[in-house]
Amino acid sequence: MSKIILKSVMFQGQVRDILISGKKFSKVFRPLTPKDFDKAEIVDCSGLAILPPFYNGHCHAAMTLLRGYADDMPLQEWLQNHIWPFEGKMTPKDIEIGSRLAVLEMIKSGTVFFADMYWHRERTMKVVKEMGIRASIGVTFAQGLMTNEAIENNFKFIKDHKFESDRVKLAVMPHSIYMVGEALFKRCAKTAREEEMILHTHLSETAKEVKDCKKKDGCSPVELMDRYGVLGDNFVAAHCVHLSEQDMALMAESGSAAVLNPCSNLKLNSGIPKIPKMLDSGMLVALGTDGASSNNNLDMHEEMKVASLLAKALGKADILNADDALKMATASGAMAYGVEAGVIAEGFLADALLVDLKNERLNPRHNLVSNWVYAADSSAIHSVICDGKFVMKNRHIDGEEDIVREAEACAKSIASRC
Amino acid sequence: MSKIILKSVMFQGQVRDILISGKKFSKVFRPLTPKDFDKAEIVDCSGLAILPPFYNGHCHAAMTLLRGYADDMPLQEWLQNHIWPFEGKMTPKDIEIGSRLAVLEMIKSGTVFFADMYWHRERTMKVVKEMGIRASIGVTFAQGLMTNEAIENNFKFIKDHKFESDRVKLAVMPHSIYMVGEALFKRCAKTAREEEMILHTHLSETAKEVKDCKKKDGCSPVELMDRYGVLGDNFVAAHCVHLSEQDMALMAESGSAAVLNPCSNLKLNSGIPKIPKMLDSGMLVALGTDGASSNNNLDMHEEMKVASLLAKALGKADILNADDALKMATASGAMAYGVEAGVIAEGFLADALLVDLKNERLNPRHNLVSNWVYAADSSAIHSVICDGKFVMKNRHIDGEEDIVREAEACAKSIASRC
Repeated sequence: MSKIILKSVMFQGQVRDILISGKKFSKVFRPLTPKDFDKAEIVDCSGLAILPPFYNGHCHAAMTLLRGYADDMPLQEWLQNHIWPFEGKMTPKDIEIGSRLAVLEMIKSGTVFFADMYWHRERTMKVVKEMGIRASIGVTFAQGLMTNEAIENNFKFIKDHKFESDRVKLAVMPHSIYMVGEALFKRCAKTAREEEMILHTHLSETAKEVKDCKKKDGCSPVELMDRYGVLGDNFVAAHCVHLSEQDMALMAESGSAAVLNPCSNLKLNSGIPKIPKMLDSGMLVALGTDGASSNNNLDMHEEMKVASLLAKALGKADILNADDALKMATASGAMAYGVEAGVIAEGFLADALLVDLKNERLNPRHNLVSNWVYAADSSAIHSVICDGKFVMKNRHIDGEEDIVREAEACAKSIASRC
Repeated sequence: MSKIILKSVMFQGQVRDILISGKKFSKVFRPLTPKDFDKAEIVDCSGLAILPPFYNGHCHAAMTLLRGYADDMPLQEWLQNHIWPFEGKMTPKDIEIGSRLAVLEMIKSGTVFFADMYWHRERTMKVVKEMGIRASIGVTFAQGLMTNEAIENNFKFIKDHKFESDRVKLAVMPHSIYMVGEALFKRCAKTAREEEMILHTHLSETAKEVKDCKKKDGCSPVELMDRYGVLGDNFVAAHCVHLSEQDMALMAESGSAAVLNPCSNLKLNSGIPKIPKMLDSGMLVALGTDGASSNNNLDMHEEMKVASLLAKALGKADILNADDALKMATASGAMAYGVEAGVIAEGFLADALLVDLKNERLNPRHNLVSNWVYAADSSAIHSVICDGKFVMKNRHIDGEEDIVREAEACAKSIASRC
């Protein structure tokens, strides 16, 4: 089993040596012995601090190709005249190129996991495997956009690829209650339960969705999920902007998780998530970035800070403190997706950030977590570790210039054909 | 006169050569002649784009020393038990050290100007002169905290130091309507008018301030400013969270400017600024960071993105577009403080950012301004130019490690005595 020793790394205010054995942290709090150093790769981490990395609970990775393609317009105009025509031209190869830019951006901004809802999943899976991070890759269902055969192929794909890899797992992702009807939604939920998979959907993103649901089904979207038997600890709902207190109680009691995407929700005028009430309800709340066409980045640090600010603005100055905000962006996302990571502790998967303590925004160091959450940005990130391996060292990822160049050429080519 | 040619720099979608002569842009749109190259310093800017830099309309620079010292608690506890005791121990030398860390952080995040309200102004002025950026340095008035002699000395200082330097100008800064009474406020306003100086104050930051003002004076804080004769095109009010439509009309008609500090306002639960209505009123709206003890950084890019998101969340998805958000964080701040800069154009002061077009968040490049405003962070900034000189080249500032180290030691020492 491979061994890495993070030598002289700052952790919780003390300089320590941390041992990673294989994919896990094996010594964090206990002192290392001479035997631990046998055949270990020793990485000098003096001047660096270790922190948990980000787990992005909701995104559409390949949509990085649409970053800045259309902004600042009403939702329907944005979708119909710009986003959909562009997406209509995207080939599987384009999706691979867009996913690669997305994973590059995620690693550089400290993210080691993302949940992805998109098309041509095998391309995104390939990129994630190559680049060394984790993902929960959606088998996406959307009626109207798919033939019955495509839907059946989805279910077949799930059976065939369930145990795809340690780092890349499949999840069942019916798009939303307005794109997937009752029968298919229930079948998705049944499959997810039987195969022990995560079920992920967009839920209560806009006031219109809630209103339409009440009109059609006589209940809120969360209540509809309850009626369908979808709620449970394998259920992760993206957005959840417009939850009632009853909705929150249902989510909390069932062990369901919400993934908030505050930057996207604000930018698209979908609403401001009611973070203080969600926290009060006891439900599991994690964070995501949504796609780069509506954010316009995949920076979980930004979501963490914005979520924390909104919580304080809507509630009180003393809620969602720095430690809790960090947990929301890290361990809570890992927990929602069943990844045993997001905590720097023995027995957990060895995922981590190393931040540069010389960075001006991490100083003075009255409180490193506060500095990281409220003051820093991605410029403080020095290295990123996932699954016991460095996926970025000293701010550089092999081949990054090529990834950026290829994505630029690809996006320009698609745009020229729209 | 010194000449710099920015060779092969991307500007508004085209690769150009830009000539800076002395402190100003002298050729931006026109082609350069062989004579322009005579004795010019030629800087290869291929792969870089030029953008206007940030103008921070409200901060308390030396409070970087309190970054992360106290967070996530009610305002009164925060001020009385943490911030004030720490500030009580700060010497002029400490303020110099804190200001130096602040200016370092500002340059690294693309800011070339700040308006500063604090104490021991001569120390902050010294730092700004040394480090090459611009500032409007407050002569701060706060009754109760100052003797009459100190107040008279302030007025004397104004007379003696008015024309301090091109880059460093004084401004008259009565703290707020609750720290400065009618007579002194009026005297401040008269002095500012006579000496052609900016008058800057905190205004309508909290609901309590507005309520107290209505109770005591029977009007809103902006109406009180109107009654005092303070409003006008040399008046810049920080915060303006709780303005009525009547307040906005008064500000707009008088040519007064508001500087919003959304991150600080949200974090301290002061409220969410009503950006859409302010924009509708036609008033000049700029941005600031407030101090690092309540933000917790001096990153104008973050304020720009958060302001843009809040505008869309409170208004519609198509307001405060990327160009307008960029203007709010750049040219509008310069305009509020009477600095002829913030626009990359001939005749304007040569202040600029160079961003690295290889940065993953600036790609694909459907729209560079959108990418910069919505997707990037400070990691995309390559170099910073102020007053015709590079103040940062290739992400490095001479002596930055020492500045950080000195600030850390200084802050720890103060904290140990609190």
